[in-house]
Amino acid sequence: MKLSQRIQTCELSPMRKFHPLAVEAQAKGRKIYHLNIGQPDIATPELYFDAVRQFSSPVLAYAESPGIPSFLHAVQGYYNRLGAHYDESEILATTGGSEALSILMQCILDPGSEVLIPEPYYPNYATFIRAACGEIQPIPTSPEEGYHYADRAKIEPLIHENTRAILITNPSNPTGVILNAEERQLLLDIAMEHDLYLICDEVYREFTYNGEGLVTMGTMERGQDHLVIVDSVSKRFSACGARIGCLISKNKALMAEAMKFCQARLSVATLDQVAAAALYNVEQSYFDQVRQEYQRRRDTVMRKLHSIPNVTAKTPDGAFYLMAALPVDDADKFQAWLLTDFEDHGETVMFSPGHSFYATPGKGVNEIRIAYVLNEADLSRAMDLLALGIEAYQKTMK
Amino acid sequence: MKLSQRIQTCELSPMRKFHPLAVEAQAKGRKIYHLNIGQPDIATPELYFDAVRQFSSPVLAYAESPGIPSFLHAVQGYYNRLGAHYDESEILATTGGSEALSILMQCILDPGSEVLIPEPYYPNYATFIRAACGEIQPIPTSPEEGYHYADRAKIEPLIHENTRAILITNPSNPTGVILNAEERQLLLDIAMEHDLYLICDEVYREFTYNGEGLVTMGTMERGQDHLVIVDSVSKRFSACGARIGCLISKNKALMAEAMKFCQARLSVATLDQVAAAALYNVEQSYFDQVRQEYQRRRDTVMRKLHSIPNVTAKTPDGAFYLMAALPVDDADKFQAWLLTDFEDHGETVMFSPGHSFYATPGKGVNEIRIAYVLNEADLSRAMDLLALGIEAYQKTMK
Repeated sequence: MKLSQRIQTCELSPMRKFHPLAVEAQAKGRKIYHLNIGQPDIATPELYFDAVRQFSSPVLAYAESPGIPSFLHAVQGYYNRLGAHYDESEILATTGGSEALSILMQCILDPGSEVLIPEPYYPNYATFIRAACGEIQPIPTSPEEGYHYADRAKIEPLIHENTRAILITNPSNPTGVILNAEERQLLLDIAMEHDLYLICDEVYREFTYNGEGLVTMGTMERGQDHLVIVDSVSKRFSACGARIGCLISKNKALMAEAMKFCQARLSVATLDQVAAAALYNVEQSYFDQVRQEYQRRRDTVMRKLHSIPNVTAKTPDGAFYLMAALPVDDADKFQAWLLTDFEDHGETVMFSPGHSFYATPGKGVNEIRIAYVLNEADLSRAMDLLALGIEAYQKTMK
Repeated sequence: MKLSQRIQTCELSPMRKFHPLAVEAQAKGRKIYHLNIGQPDIATPELYFDAVRQFSSPVLAYAESPGIPSFLHAVQGYYNRLGAHYDESEILATTGGSEALSILMQCILDPGSEVLIPEPYYPNYATFIRAACGEIQPIPTSPEEGYHYADRAKIEPLIHENTRAILITNPSNPTGVILNAEERQLLLDIAMEHDLYLICDEVYREFTYNGEGLVTMGTMERGQDHLVIVDSVSKRFSACGARIGCLISKNKALMAEAMKFCQARLSVATLDQVAAAALYNVEQSYFDQVRQEYQRRRDTVMRKLHSIPNVTAKTPDGAFYLMAALPVDDADKFQAWLLTDFEDHGETVMFSPGHSFYATPGKGVNEIRIAYVLNEADLSRAMDLLALGIEAYQKTMK
């Protein structure tokens, strides 16, 4: 029995592939601090659970394929308040931002099509693109330049006839980079000039520490027909387990094709959509508190990182991740070792090894992505475990 | 901006593509009886809503990528009771049976790969296969032969080097055909002999009216490594809106590849998995009542169909669908007309036009699929509307 060639080019998620080793470590009584996955410890607003408890239909029926009206209306209203005006028909509910990306790639890629992505990037993009028979063309960046990628001279030489789209995450996972208004328009202009889609994953919109407030590409003047926004309630409302996202675009031809997939998979979970719609009524103070909390966490992580010898990292402006280069030979081996051979007072730590965040061979091997999603006490302990782990691992390297 | 070639070969769902016309008809005050979609009116067991209300974690977190342990355990126990013994690692939770099919096709099809499917078939299969760059090779059947397809002489000549799998629905949507034990083993033997996957969509397992009880391919003696079962809580527990299904196989290589997708899309909705696990505790009397109810509905539909002149249909043994050939030129046109031009006391009816259930061009044009998912009074009225509609439509054809 054959397996598809493209699935064999895909990898396990660097955020999740050490799960079996983690289970073994836990079985030995280890406590693990998780910096590997963007699972915030922030409480989901009670609005979600209230809506779920109040659901009173006796039949849990399929929802409408494009999404339930109350959810689409909530998303529309939220974007309106940001100054981006979408018709409800320009929004499709999806099973997380993940499904939005998966559907999108199926709609725009043929075998051999390329998608330009600044690297390092969210590794699951690679699976969605390869599943659709496409390939990643990385836009190289460097920590020395602050992972800057919105540069015509960097991007245009990479565009050729097989290029279909530019995919960015703003604010960025994993680098925390945030685009300014000029850079946002530049990317849309490049997309217009070369007839490409600009796919903007904006799921970390609320998490900015540069004082600029909430930003969406949906307010840009030119090029809206080229823009596709991927969004989700997962991070915004700390509701990752709801698996509710959306695909947003004014490109009618694209949305008509996406609807074919939405109909084929019938619908997104009904109860989660009802409850996700309710989340959009949360008060502003919720976001203010969450942002302040993450800013403190970011500062804690950076302070701790700076105290570890020979570690380099750039302070992120947004999202809740950062890339750090460690004085180890191979972050994959180091992570496995932390789970199998290391402990301090019965505790250890997980992060995401960096090489899967790069398409360029050899890059990121000694890097890790840290998700600063734990409370400050746990975060502080996790970073101390990282420091102790590096020190102990270096002795094994000799 | 280009769209992928394969998405352009996909169609809107025949079950859902008339939704915009239905919305218009409703805006004019029409009441619509829905025989177009497999959305039962049976109440979802309270166990589901109880579990949802009792969920007490303050953070709605991502679930484990393969599924939460309690759901996998519930599915394992259910199959054990049927005599099919799976390890929990041989079960992956998915967002409905739909996602199981989508992941599976991505894992086994390359551009140009073929999947053998008895036609008529569930039309969304075509989208999942085409999305994975594959093609359908139909196994022709006929109502005169009772839609029989488990026949070596019919299947083997269609197998060639690009064939990757045989996909069946047992009990069948849309024909209601049920395989006997000999036929089930025959299909697995063919899969073994030609090194193919046998994908068995068993989501209608509980809906059988031939007295045979619950059956799964998972109990067959030979060929388990070739078997992939697609399952779902949607129909079993009238919980379509939960979007909880699973992919089951003893083929370790396949399951390892499927895990890459499961990790890339992170997880299935947490609350729905918790509640779906609880559903597996429902009492046997629930299933007995539901089956009796559907058997009565089936008998009502058949009685009504037989009273309409020049309609042909075979009595289904399972699931809750049937195909019927109508004395109309084109079931697509007829459905549109029923929504735009027809009413009887302000009421009309929807079904699924048949041509999308066939890959062979020209087949099924005058056929429809009826989902007998309404209570008997509504079903009876819906069938009367169908009869009145046919009579009135025939006058417009002259």
